[in-house]
Amino acid sequence: MPQLRRDPITGRWVIIAAERAKRPEDFLISQGKIVDTECPFCEGKESNTPPEIYALRQPGTKPNQPGWAVRVVPSISPILRIEGTLNRHGKGIYDLMNGVGAHEVVVETQTHTAHMADLEPEQIKKVIDTYIYRVSDLEKDPRFKYVLIFKNYGVTAGSTMYKHSRSQLIATPVNPKLVKEELAGSKKYFDYKERCIYCDILRQELDKQDRVILDIDGFVAIAPFASRFPFETWILPKQHSCDFTKTPESARMDLARILKMTLAKLKASLGDPPYNFIVHTAPFRTGRKAGYWKTIEDDYHWHIEIIPRLTRVAGFEWGTGVYINPTPPEEAAKYLRELDIG
Amino acid sequence: MPQLRRDPITGRWVIIAAERAKRPEDFLISQGKIVDTECPFCEGKESNTPPEIYALRQPGTKPNQPGWAVRVVPSISPILRIEGTLNRHGKGIYDLMNGVGAHEVVVETQTHTAHMADLEPEQIKKVIDTYIYRVSDLEKDPRFKYVLIFKNYGVTAGSTMYKHSRSQLIATPVNPKLVKEELAGSKKYFDYKERCIYCDILRQELDKQDRVILDIDGFVAIAPFASRFPFETWILPKQHSCDFTKTPESARMDLARILKMTLAKLKASLGDPPYNFIVHTAPFRTGRKAGYWKTIEDDYHWHIEIIPRLTRVAGFEWGTGVYINPTPPEEAAKYLRELDIG
Repeated sequence: MPQLRRDPITGRWVIIAAERAKRPEDFLISQGKIVDTECPFCEGKESNTPPEIYALRQPGTKPNQPGWAVRVVPSISPILRIEGTLNRHGKGIYDLMNGVGAHEVVVETQTHTAHMADLEPEQIKKVIDTYIYRVSDLEKDPRFKYVLIFKNYGVTAGSTMYKHSRSQLIATPVNPKLVKEELAGSKKYFDYKERCIYCDILRQELDKQDRVILDIDGFVAIAPFASRFPFETWILPKQHSCDFTKTPESARMDLARILKMTLAKLKASLGDPPYNFIVHTAPFRTGRKAGYWKTIEDDYHWHIEIIPRLTRVAGFEWGTGVYINPTPPEEAAKYLRELDIG
Repeated sequence: MPQLRRDPITGRWVIIAAERAKRPEDFLISQGKIVDTECPFCEGKESNTPPEIYALRQPGTKPNQPGWAVRVVPSISPILRIEGTLNRHGKGIYDLMNGVGAHEVVVETQTHTAHMADLEPEQIKKVIDTYIYRVSDLEKDPRFKYVLIFKNYGVTAGSTMYKHSRSQLIATPVNPKLVKEELAGSKKYFDYKERCIYCDILRQELDKQDRVILDIDGFVAIAPFASRFPFETWILPKQHSCDFTKTPESARMDLARILKMTLAKLKASLGDPPYNFIVHTAPFRTGRKAGYWKTIEDDYHWHIEIIPRLTRVAGFEWGTGVYINPTPPEEAAKYLRELDIG
């Protein structure tokens, strides 16, 4: 069973994934080749994955058979385990609990397409529907507080096997540190200004225009003012909402379109770079602190952060939390805005 | 001039290093080959670096000539600039200032030795003396609040040119986020317990022994309970002190010895891995908040964090701040403790 341990000084959680246990010699083997034969995520290879959790299927087709458009399967090397109780406890000065959670893989297409930008908007919309369905389902489990929706594309971004386009969902029994930091920052702002900080950012960006990449159908893609990474891009809904899963059916196709266009621009301009995308959304607003979490609905504004992995994070960043970005976001935005992707 | 920009939500600072400006095509060239010919850091090549800031020299030798043991030169691609005023200001919702700071390279030996573990303890002691001298000098500049002492070893850890053993000092006009987090966490603990949290960690670790790697001469090397990375190692002084630069002359040779032994164990066990080391020490305790910073002297405990770069940081870590570590620190400590480096 993996273990969640908390650093007593900073409060950050770490997952000690002992089942992936690595001894020194395991690190000596050079890592990071993408294996891309016998892809288990292609239609017709359903028996090569664990049994599916969910699939968007054509009527009349059976689970774990062809006939699906998006398919969700358990990770074969989950970082958290679905079985068991949390058993929160202390050991002297330290806090720990069992590594209970969910780790699911969302296979975004039945064909062996590598890049999400190469999927049709209709297909990306189905992926969004699937994210929302799965998160809403995981929310019913009282052990979980948050679900991270993310994608690792390319070796440098953490993908190691098969080029088949897919993303991941990880449900955690704690609210992660970075999520709490965004919530605390936006709460502080709201408490003082009685306005959502992200709405104010959007207003200033749309007025100024120099960091805007795309502005279509109720969504905006910007290069954020304090971009940590070259070509870092955020997609935000113009309509205030703290919760990605509450995106109305009517807006999902628009979101699919801007996501496809943004990813296509990044792919075309940077030579198909490795990247991560991460959905930043409100945690489940239940449990002991339901009242507190309720305030998030005003304070917070969900968004997607896309990070091309072009620079290395070194000692300075690890020591300070200050990032060094060699590309001013205004230049990145101008380049991406003007790039014609046909 | 580089720019320091603050993310309005989380408060994290970013350095937009526009002078290193990178356009999309710059990222298409494959990066990360170590160039290792015509090393400018070797004795006799002094004219190939900018003029030295400081050197530990044999009596009678001249600056920028042979005859030194440790030499400090300005970085040729500084991420912050020494000239200019901060000019803190706002732009609507955003905060920014000029990227004023210092960025120095500490050349740790006159010979072309790659790894700090291969230097004699006497030489490492001279490097420590040099760190302390330079930080104490930079402290006199009222624009600076913190100096980060760190090392990038190997391509994955962010080193790109020459294998000559060296480290870096960066003085910043802000107290970095991660530093503030450690200070806040240890202050909170002290306010409640009236004890230093690091002293309590040391007490528990020395009692339990299962995460102790080395315990010699007043210093302890441990695999921390909530290690973010496989074989992450911290070196702490047993004697409480918030400030690395206050390490008495009498203890510096002991520190040099444990640092050499720890690095040698990591090098031998993991096949000479890339790594970062970072000195975590108290910020300058002056300026407007001198009274507040004064409390750090009780709360905080300086230490060195060594991070072998063996795993990739991917979407989950970027999205949550929760790290996944496949090697339990107890196993890493046992392995390193028992490894005989002769």
